Amino acid sequence: MKHQDLFTTFQSELSELASLNASFKVALSGGLDSVVLLHLFSRIKNCEVIAHHVHHGLSDNADHWVQFCTQFCTAINIPLTVSHVTLDKKSRTSLEALAREKRYEVLKKGFNNNSYLVTGHHQDDQLETVLLALKRGAGLTGLQGIVAQQALAEGHLIRPLLNFSREQLEHYAAQFQLNWIEDESNTDQQFDRNFIRHSIAPLLKQRWPAITKTVSRSAKHCQSQQLLIDEITESDFILCQSTALALDIEPLTALSVTRRNNVLRDWFKLAGYQYPSTKQLATIWQDLVLAQSDATPKVRLQGIAVCRYRQAIYLVDESKLLNQAPRIVWQGEQQVSLGNGKMMLKFDASDDFLKQQHLVEICFREHLASDFSCKPIGRNKGRSLKKLLHEFHVAPWLRNSVPLIFIDGELVEAVALFSCANTASAGLRITLL
Amino acid sequence: MKHQDLFTTFQSELSELASLNASFKVALSGGLDSVVLLHLFSRIKNCEVIAHHVHHGLSDNADHWVQFCTQFCTAINIPLTVSHVTLDKKSRTSLEALAREKRYEVLKKGFNNNSYLVTGHHQDDQLETVLLALKRGAGLTGLQGIVAQQALAEGHLIRPLLNFSREQLEHYAAQFQLNWIEDESNTDQQFDRNFIRHSIAPLLKQRWPAITKTVSRSAKHCQSQQLLIDEITESDFILCQSTALALDIEPLTALSVTRRNNVLRDWFKLAGYQYPSTKQLATIWQDLVLAQSDATPKVRLQGIAVCRYRQAIYLVDESKLLNQAPRIVWQGEQQVSLGNGKMMLKFDASDDFLKQQHLVEICFREHLASDFSCKPIGRNKGRSLKKLLHEFHVAPWLRNSVPLIFIDGELVEAVALFSCANTASAGLRITLL
Repeated sequence: MKHQDLFTTFQSELSELASLNASFKVALSGGLDSVVLLHLFSRIKNCEVIAHHVHHGLSDNADHWVQFCTQFCTAINIPLTVSHVTLDKKSRTSLEALAREKRYEVLKKGFNNNSYLVTGHHQDDQLETVLLALKRGAGLTGLQGIVAQQALAEGHLIRPLLNFSREQLEHYAAQFQLNWIEDESNTDQQFDRNFIRHSIAPLLKQRWPAITKTVSRSAKHCQSQQLLIDEITESDFILCQSTALALDIEPLTALSVTRRNNVLRDWFKLAGYQYPSTKQLATIWQDLVLAQSDATPKVRLQGIAVCRYRQAIYLVDESKLLNQAPRIVWQGEQQVSLGNGKMMLKFDASDDFLKQQHLVEICFREHLASDFSCKPIGRNKGRSLKKLLHEFHVAPWLRNSVPLIFIDGELVEAVALFSCANTASAGLRITLL
Repeated sequence: MKHQDLFTTFQSELSELASLNASFKVALSGGLDSVVLLHLFSRIKNCEVIAHHVHHGLSDNADHWVQFCTQFCTAINIPLTVSHVTLDKKSRTSLEALAREKRYEVLKKGFNNNSYLVTGHHQDDQLETVLLALKRGAGLTGLQGIVAQQALAEGHLIRPLLNFSREQLEHYAAQFQLNWIEDESNTDQQFDRNFIRHSIAPLLKQRWPAITKTVSRSAKHCQSQQLLIDEITESDFILCQSTALALDIEPLTALSVTRRNNVLRDWFKLAGYQYPSTKQLATIWQDLVLAQSDATPKVRLQGIAVCRYRQAIYLVDESKLLNQAPRIVWQGEQQVSLGNGKMMLKFDASDDFLKQQHLVEICFREHLASDFSCKPIGRNKGRSLKKLLHEFHVAPWLRNSVPLIFIDGELVEAVALFSCANTASAGLRITLL
């Protein structure tokens, strides 16, 4: 592919990935990929583009890189922003990941729907990424490799060079006599990616010159099948979702194992946790769902508990539960925070109520006798609190967290559940925030 | 994993893959994998198992292999069948594929629902297969690699060693002092698989000892996602299927691109053709479906034509169409074959009809004037044959293949479409077989 073809193809790739009035920000490291990328941008007419270099301070040459980027941007007349980030050097292996995270954090600042971060990832990167996914034993999500476009904050991240090989970029750079920086860490084979780049990829490319192209095709196949699976999983999820983030067991049972596992994986992800392994999913199903229906089993993983109550399953972060809360006397505050903000109660009291100077207390089940009895409004006889919580379908792990309001020593309310027949509570309204 | 563990794990793998009263046939090459596999079988009590060695005559040592297998089977007391196949040596690269095809053909003979062919594929084979899929740029279907179980003729093909590495099998063989044959072609790096085995896999395993395990896990992830996709595609296909193997355009349009492409891929597969490429699918969609709705466009690939007629698309093998058929005079046969059996007509004539000695002719549109007119039963006036074929929704490519029956020089029937008002046809019934 001649350089003219490369520019033409780049233009059409770009127009497929971005809207016409886009504002582009090229992540410029100073390496071959980003130098070629920025140069290609400099040749597009009427294109709003800036470059952004992030100085990690990881290399002794980092200052020199800044100097190089500044000169290059001046030469091609594109504005450059330089940001400095400091990394907390802990372990050598996670440093790359930490640097990437920090970099994107800086790069995406102030992004809106019209903002496009552009990176220079190419086919050789894709080959490495897919092989690394195999090394991890990843599924489709990993095997889809680097995607050409994704959301980034309120904006977008696009990779218009993903269909070009490094060799093509090198030819382009030679054609335009572009210089670039070789990051010395790229040769350090302690990094798995560099091991592939220097010890595996050359052998594969020598045997099969089209390998970067074919692996990219495989990745694209995976991407489109992943889209389909996302589509199916999303509709399955909606079908299974009970209240909040709980899942109903019945519709889950109706799904095939794979679809069910996809729903469960998404469930963890949406709740902000890591994807569980297939083995963990099997355990959840076996121990939690196939358990006796009157049992309330629990599976612990990733520091949380997966719990079942009645015909639904729940993700419970026990560290966020309000347990062992003290008995509190209300001092007339408009809001009362319980357990360092784990729970917040709002008090609306009428002037009349305040004048009567009642003793208002917030307490919990643990402060009461196990057979403590109460009588919700509209009932003929009292029932034990234990049975009432069960009757109101309060999950076992939440039963110690129900705020019970006492006025002058008598229970008037189990907040958000029921009120008791007690005239003293007139003029006081308590809500859970 | 100690040998005892390996046997125990093997037993449980086997019981997951096969029914209890299965009849097993082990494909015995004499190599490490199949020798270990057969030895494991010999230790299972009350198991109906035989070995089957296929002699391809490819190696100069092939006769020696037969001898080895015979001795080994005698030693472990398992019946052995030896089959000889001859291969038509054409090109070196496809020889392996040809040998495999012939081998399975022989091995599956006489299979019923209770028959299980067992092969010794293991994790190292899986690693090679997945890397070969990447080399081809395969999608999920290829990346799922070797599956642990699949249908074979009326029976099954299972691979209970797929969760073991070659190293584990070597340990087992050493433990039981098993000998095996090294097929000298396994070192020939002209074969892509052997290149991976000898030049790539060792480097990967040295760097990441768990690589065969993780790649197998990736393959399994792909297998289960492929199952899901098959499930979705099957139901999408049913939704889109029109008559026979045609697909209705409207429900296809309602699907996402990936789901639509999956349906189109299955369509080719079910009709007995190769999967089309993503690019070919895009062409079909663009040129065929997005064409003007009154057009009858056509896309050619794989030696067939993908055609559109009205609101459906068709796969048309033009070589199987009955075109340029001669005008034939019926001689009283019960069946008349047209175009070397491409079409078969059945004639039922009453004795009365036969006695009347009519001249019965079979001809086709090409034998008639373009404005040839006819009058189907129940109509007031005649219409041109051209317009009638259009009215009866005969696809353009089939219009020259409609057998037209003339009695004493007058059209009495367009077979399977309409009959004309003509009394001479009483007593003659013609059907398309």
